[in-house]
Amino acid sequence: MRRFGLLTGGGDCPGLNAVIWSVVRGAARAGVEIVGVVDGFEGLVGGENGLNIRTLGSADVRNIFNQGGTVLGTTNRGNPFKYVTVRDGQSQIEDRGDEVVANIAQLGLEGLIAIGGDGSLAIAHELGERGARVIGVPKTIDNDLGSTDSTFGFYTAVEVAMEALDRLRTTGESHDRVMILEVMGRYAGWIALHAGLVGGAHVVLIPEIPYDINKVLGQVRQRWHEDRRNFTLIVVAEGAFPAGGKTSLVESAGAGTNARLGGAGHQLEVELREAFTHGWDRPMVPEVRTTVLGHIQRGGSPVAYDRLISLRFGAEAVRLALAGEWGKMVCLRGTQIESVPLVDGIRKPHLVETDSQLVRHARTVGISFGD
Amino acid sequence: MRRFGLLTGGGDCPGLNAVIWSVVRGAARAGVEIVGVVDGFEGLVGGENGLNIRTLGSADVRNIFNQGGTVLGTTNRGNPFKYVTVRDGQSQIEDRGDEVVANIAQLGLEGLIAIGGDGSLAIAHELGERGARVIGVPKTIDNDLGSTDSTFGFYTAVEVAMEALDRLRTTGESHDRVMILEVMGRYAGWIALHAGLVGGAHVVLIPEIPYDINKVLGQVRQRWHEDRRNFTLIVVAEGAFPAGGKTSLVESAGAGTNARLGGAGHQLEVELREAFTHGWDRPMVPEVRTTVLGHIQRGGSPVAYDRLISLRFGAEAVRLALAGEWGKMVCLRGTQIESVPLVDGIRKPHLVETDSQLVRHARTVGISFGD
Amino acid sequence: MRRFGLLTGGGDCPGLNAVIWSVVRGAARAGVEIVGVVDGFEGLVGGENGLNIRTLGSADVRNIFNQGGTVLGTTNRGNPFKYVTVRDGQSQIEDRGDEVVANIAQLGLEGLIAIGGDGSLAIAHELGERGARVIGVPKTIDNDLGSTDSTFGFYTAVEVAMEALDRLRTTGESHDRVMILEVMGRYAGWIALHAGLVGGAHVVLIPEIPYDINKVLGQVRQRWHEDRRNFTLIVVAEGAFPAGGKTSLVESAGAGTNARLGGAGHQLEVELREAFTHGWDRPMVPEVRTTVLGHIQRGGSPVAYDRLISLRFGAEAVRLALAGEWGKMVCLRGTQIESVPLVDGIRKPHLVETDSQLVRHARTVGISFGD
Amino acid sequence: MRRFGLLTGGGDCPGLNAVIWSVVRGAARAGVEIVGVVDGFEGLVGGENGLNIRTLGSADVRNIFNQGGTVLGTTNRGNPFKYVTVRDGQSQIEDRGDEVVANIAQLGLEGLIAIGGDGSLAIAHELGERGARVIGVPKTIDNDLGSTDSTFGFYTAVEVAMEALDRLRTTGESHDRVMILEVMGRYAGWIALHAGLVGGAHVVLIPEIPYDINKVLGQVRQRWHEDRRNFTLIVVAEGAFPAGGKTSLVESAGAGTNARLGGAGHQLEVELREAFTHGWDRPMVPEVRTTVLGHIQRGGSPVAYDRLISLRFGAEAVRLALAGEWGKMVCLRGTQIESVPLVDGIRKPHLVETDSQLVRHARTVGISFGD
Repeated sequence: MRRFGLLTGGGDCPGLNAVIWSVVRGAARAGVEIVGVVDGFEGLVGGENGLNIRTLGSADVRNIFNQGGTVLGTTNRGNPFKYVTVRDGQSQIEDRGDEVVANIAQLGLEGLIAIGGDGSLAIAHELGERGARVIGVPKTIDNDLGSTDSTFGFYTAVEVAMEALDRLRTTGESHDRVMILEVMGRYAGWIALHAGLVGGAHVVLIPEIPYDINKVLGQVRQRWHEDRRNFTLIVVAEGAFPAGGKTSLVESAGAGTNARLGGAGHQLEVELREAFTHGWDRPMVPEVRTTVLGHIQRGGSPVAYDRLISLRFGAEAVRLALAGEWGKMVCLRGTQIESVPLVDGIRKPHLVETDSQLVRHARTVGISFGD
Repeated sequence: MRRFGLLTGGGDCPGLNAVIWSVVRGAARAGVEIVGVVDGFEGLVGGENGLNIRTLGSADVRNIFNQGGTVLGTTNRGNPFKYVTVRDGQSQIEDRGDEVVANIAQLGLEGLIAIGGDGSLAIAHELGERGARVIGVPKTIDNDLGSTDSTFGFYTAVEVAMEALDRLRTTGESHDRVMILEVMGRYAGWIALHAGLVGGAHVVLIPEIPYDINKVLGQVRQRWHEDRRNFTLIVVAEGAFPAGGKTSLVESAGAGTNARLGGAGHQLEVELREAFTHGWDRPMVPEVRTTVLGHIQRGGSPVAYDRLISLRFGAEAVRLALAGEWGKMVCLRGTQIESVPLVDGIRKPHLVETDSQLVRHARTVGISFGD
Repeated sequence: MRRFGLLTGGGDCPGLNAVIWSVVRGAARAGVEIVGVVDGFEGLVGGENGLNIRTLGSADVRNIFNQGGTVLGTTNRGNPFKYVTVRDGQSQIEDRGDEVVANIAQLGLEGLIAIGGDGSLAIAHELGERGARVIGVPKTIDNDLGSTDSTFGFYTAVEVAMEALDRLRTTGESHDRVMILEVMGRYAGWIALHAGLVGGAHVVLIPEIPYDINKVLGQVRQRWHEDRRNFTLIVVAEGAFPAGGKTSLVESAGAGTNARLGGAGHQLEVELREAFTHGWDRPMVPEVRTTVLGHIQRGGSPVAYDRLISLRFGAEAVRLALAGEWGKMVCLRGTQIESVPLVDGIRKPHLVETDSQLVRHARTVGISFGD
Repeated sequence: MRRFGLLTGGGDCPGLNAVIWSVVRGAARAGVEIVGVVDGFEGLVGGENGLNIRTLGSADVRNIFNQGGTVLGTTNRGNPFKYVTVRDGQSQIEDRGDEVVANIAQLGLEGLIAIGGDGSLAIAHELGERGARVIGVPKTIDNDLGSTDSTFGFYTAVEVAMEALDRLRTTGESHDRVMILEVMGRYAGWIALHAGLVGGAHVVLIPEIPYDINKVLGQVRQRWHEDRRNFTLIVVAEGAFPAGGKTSLVESAGAGTNARLGGAGHQLEVELREAFTHGWDRPMVPEVRTTVLGHIQRGGSPVAYDRLISLRFGAEAVRLALAGEWGKMVCLRGTQIESVPLVDGIRKPHLVETDSQLVRHARTVGISFGD
């Protein structure tokens, strides 16, 4: 019986289980067995831990297509090329890549379908360089891959942020407040830009366009002139930062902790409060409230659009594998699922271009980027 | 001051208000006044009724971007080329098209932005032939336009149908039932196909693929063999019909009433009940339940994807109008908003192709089309 | 080890799995094993079919608390006192109640926790009369039990209907239509009344108040006078029927088929269309659209309120069982979970009283009951 | 024509507009005019600012019943008994209460319906002491009023938090993480307790039960023993704090800023990280992620339950006013709306009792309170 491997890598993203469901069902219909690798590439590193796999049939994936998370589990550890082991209290970094390639062969897998972000796809690509047959399924909540129109998970994140904005809007309006919503996006502002646009934000701050706090203040002031109210709805990507002397919190504090323990949203709140205290020339100092959406954007059931992309990515990945077209990554082009060389998936991230049509459209309807 | 006209035509579609919001705000920033036409083309027919217009500024469209419906109202009457009037108890059909063209000029409008489906766009195109300057914004809940990747409203309809399927699934599974969901789509099965795919349906019946009731029964039977349960989730487009002697309810009874008073969903239920009564060879006759979603699919707040398309369509329509590029229709290509000649929007509807990649993907994950 | 039995009976209701989850976890903490009975009382009838049970530990109920349906399954068949068997092509009705009581004892169960509606609770009560120890957990989507303030599932049904009304409203308003929503409720109008109230309906038709079609027409006419529009939002319970000569469809056609194949919603649509055709004195005949929600109201994830009641009912049922307080039914009183004799749960259904405070409140905000 | 005043005070709460809608429509049917007071009691203080009122008819409140916020606006300033004015750069605090009482009379209002929390109701009560006729409608997102079973807004907040937990759960499970959700509740833990219960939390930390970080760690450790995973779902009220030496952040830093800029959720994250770094005896240090829901809990469209309470509170407040029963506050008892003396609404807050049935139920299903 033919066998393909399947694994998920990296952070959570709504639609992972839908890809798994689709791959398993598609393979089953073609008479191919799917060997699921547990906890990402970690499960393929042999040695003292042993392999961590489980065969997946249709019954194993019943009803998971609309569930968040991944039944295969995953972990951020487990880069086989920089594998960390602890021996005698000493941590060592080893290259276990060849073992992984050997294990794939030993398991009788024709090849491996790897669902993951740029990190996981880079590992998959490197495994390919060393002789493994791999197909990539791109996953990024941040939408920062240039080789596909979009991926699953992103529109769910935007929907969650949009629903938050719909709620914050009503309070901001009736209670006359500056409402800040911090969304994900350390390097790319796609979630902030899309959520801000569909959620009716007045100001959108993204890493690609360093902001000038005075321009943001200018918007609050203009809101007063237009409507006699302080209500201003601001979406800020966690990686947004002010232009000039100050640097991004992400740069200054190191990734991993900072964005959570006082990120761009709270920094902006502090800057605004300070500005309102000194030199605010309106009768009433605006109150500011900040919400940090955090992981709510990454979990839970995917919206229809993301389920569609996930299921089609899975079906197309199976088709490629059956046809022996390894070394490819599935991608979305318009309404079709196509494929590109896997290496295309790991190029430098696709960021928001400041002169793009999308940014222009946002400016057309009145959004300020604080620039 | 420059002035553009703006109207909405045809049935409801989530995102109409978002287009209006975007056009009005975009025009305001360019110093252009938007003259809203009330109740579709009806509002532009002069004579005894008079024109029905209202100027729209930013304050008039506050907070409508996330609301369903259209603040301009609309009506299915009002085709100016076949305008129905009643005089002395006699109804007459008149061509009032030239009046409309003249009224547009008299109102001082540079041109008209018309948001509508194939019917409204055909009127807009004909007005263009007679000398009016028009830009079209395509609207179709059914997704049956070939000249754009998709339009607003469609993914909201799919989301509503998907949420219904998520609910029907849990009951069908635990109570062992055949659950039928009838969704919109008289000629095109896009909603049924997409909803069925993302909602985990076992069977999807669409107008483009006449179904064989025995094949549908075969699926119910196979479900028993696989899982020892009768649970089968079926999505049926309102225009689906059995192959062979019988014809579509839509054809046989005339559009307008039939699909609502006993449509494809109920017909299928009757056929299944009959089949289960005679010659069902399983220990337990499956129970069948049918839900007709109806207009829930067309109203309410749009999902993020649809808001995005609406807002960008509006922004691009304004850009085209400002640039004097009349006679165009905005459209979506990949992630960009582009434009095509308006006449492209009214070509024959884009139906589901039975050998398309999307249908193939659906079959890959196990969906039967009853063929 | 102490053992309690647990089963679910009757139609689906959001919260069943939450009760199961709560009972299993509560019992586990007390060191009691839960024996789940599959497919309702059917699973306790012995003989040729054998018992159908499965032991439930915490791992078996992982993550089901927010899922619709019931992991124990259920069936409408299986009344042990009128048990239908087929022998030699002849169906027979037998009393297998004593067998069930014996089987409960033989399984080593201290008693049985039965989650169900009036039908299932009547069976449970009768088993109690014959010597079994039973605790009831009341379940009714229709909210027609008088012995408890409310039960789980009801507010989820109301929420689903309300969201439908929120969507229908936007279309009805902008497209000037009479929108009819048929909701569940054959004998009791609680869902229609609550949904109509929170969904801003103009007219609510319930079985407890037979309607006069002329009064309904009067509302549509009054809407025109107030707002110059035909938009009228009508919620109709499936069991609603016109006063006078005509009878309820439910009565005339027999329960089970009629309400689904042309229920109260479609009957009302026909009546309204007829009235609009003959003798409508307004310039424009209103268009009517009907949606039949059906089983969407009974499935899927419960809202917070219903999860709360479910979980607390389960916890309290365990407490009663541990304390040996059999023969009781848990119920809600204000914010407390209390208990009443099981027999109280099967008294005649609690219907909407026409002079109740709730109906009066509905009239206060302008709702017409067509009377 | 008889006239009643109507105002909203304090923070946002889903359902405020529904109460307004209900009061206005109920009064209209009784031939009473509603005079809306803008920006809470601020609008009733005369002098240099003048009164800020607007008459509200049915057309003014069209479609607001399902919208968040309050069309009357509100402000936290404007306590007429401690009214702050700035003259010559000096801020003064004055008692303007008598002016307000006089203004109510001068406006020809029979009395005032005041919708608000304990602060606003205390002002309303004091106005009553000085001669004004007032009816109170209790509003508290925190559910901390003892004189009513619950109020509107609370279940919407719980629903929003529950949906967040449903999303965090899937990520926590598949990615093996400790997920913290901080919800509102500075003094009362009702939101945290309810959301934690219906959202399947393992740990719930509330102000009424100071927590022991070691007990929380014990839960994480136990999760490992049970399931071999670190996934632990923790809900923490913003006012929760560790027992012993440390004090609540709210106490130590002063209300208003602290809870937003590093509240209980982040404090817990820091404590857990520290504990995991030193002396964690499991192979893998759990990762921790924190989400701060913030104002998302207070805005947006209310759930069905909250709409119901709002509409009925409004209808009953009108009935009381029409009957001349001033000095009362409407409240919920079971399924009935009743009334109590207004002074009852401002008694000391109703906190979670540690030995209550609800807390016991939570413990029954396995929730730890960190004690």
